[in-house]
Amino acid sequence: MVATRNPVNLGAAARAMANFGFSGLRVVNPYEVAFREARSAVGAAPLLRAAKEYKTLDEAVADCRLVVGTTSVGHRELQHSIRRLEFGARLILKAMARGPVALLFGSEKFGLSNEDMSHCQWLMRIPTVSQNLSMNLGQAVSLCLYELARDPRASKARPDKVKPATAAENEQITKLLLDALRLSGYVNPLTAGSTEEKVRRLVRRLNLAGRDAPVLLGMLRQILWKLQ
Amino acid sequence: MVATRNPVNLGAAARAMANFGFSGLRVVNPYEVAFREARSAVGAAPLLRAAKEYKTLDEAVADCRLVVGTTSVGHRELQHSIRRLEFGARLILKAMARGPVALLFGSEKFGLSNEDMSHCQWLMRIPTVSQNLSMNLGQAVSLCLYELARDPRASKARPDKVKPATAAENEQITKLLLDALRLSGYVNPLTAGSTEEKVRRLVRRLNLAGRDAPVLLGMLRQILWKLQ
Repeated sequence: MVATRNPVNLGAAARAMANFGFSGLRVVNPYEVAFREARSAVGAAPLLRAAKEYKTLDEAVADCRLVVGTTSVGHRELQHSIRRLEFGARLILKAMARGPVALLFGSEKFGLSNEDMSHCQWLMRIPTVSQNLSMNLGQAVSLCLYELARDPRASKARPDKVKPATAAENEQITKLLLDALRLSGYVNPLTAGSTEEKVRRLVRRLNLAGRDAPVLLGMLRQILWKLQ
Repeated sequence: MVATRNPVNLGAAARAMANFGFSGLRVVNPYEVAFREARSAVGAAPLLRAAKEYKTLDEAVADCRLVVGTTSVGHRELQHSIRRLEFGARLILKAMARGPVALLFGSEKFGLSNEDMSHCQWLMRIPTVSQNLSMNLGQAVSLCLYELARDPRASKARPDKVKPATAAENEQITKLLLDALRLSGYVNPLTAGSTEEKVRRLVRRLNLAGRDAPVLLGMLRQILWKLQ
């Protein structure tokens, strides 16, 4: 975090790091009052209390094998190649296997300076729709860390599915529902055959969960008892 | 946003929506003072000013074809199937093609209540590492919207590459560097041949960008001029 002004954002960054399993918060030339406030805040994350403070950026990143700056947009002449977050994160993950990586976030108002960026191998941007509306700093940190922690397989792998009701359960529900409809005068005797099929199809379309079948059967039995 | 307490979070949610191109912020039973404050704040997003307020959740989601709740974790007995953000977002995108979708966020302290959740078809969770450390509400909103706006192809597609220097440029740099090394007494005449190869390989390993070649040639020429 370079030249951060607002203690809330230092706290938000620390919390996002804890959320996604990152450690090693480094703070470069922060607004002193903000840093002290954030650190001493009630419930400040251990991560924030353990944050290291540096006077200059080059000291802060000295041991890093890759230094990546974040930028909101193209509001100035950029001398670096810029990678979208989705792609940049893959490169960072690969680099993390080889050594420490620094991911830099500039101040709330101005972002990283050109001098800060000249320490970076490349820049990464969050793909927002409006290039003019900057992102909240805490949100920017959490988005970058989320993308690094994100599991691409999870977008394809279906989670544990709810077990569907068996055909027997669906049929039992259909029977009881038809009984209730007959008793309440819903079924026209002339079209009873087609009504039965209509109800059967409707029950199948509900895609009932196995655990919901006994609940529905209980409800229908109670209604039937009352109707009789 | 259901029962949000802090105006900062309403503002953060509105900003994240603007960042990722979403509209239609609905606020259910907010803490009145917070809502008024957030709305009248200097620089409040137009989105926030246009936010609709509802007394109850069922009114707020009445026109939606899919209602999804967000939850931090498994700190209570959940009656719903829970989907990870990476997967849930795909389902939401599909549903958005068919009709309005509601994505619910509960209050800062308690999240969504069981009553709130009973209006949902399913729940979505952000895959944080620590199940006990809740997420910042504004960050949670921005993560969900980012995942919806995220382009999976972008993680594979290489961005525009910097054009590498040509072999001729690399060789010209090698030649000038060798001249400078000879003039400064770096090259041992006995091992000059292997030094030349070493320098040539080193220059190739730098993977120089085409646009950097003239800059380096200029530097070397100036040094050579001074050495002579």
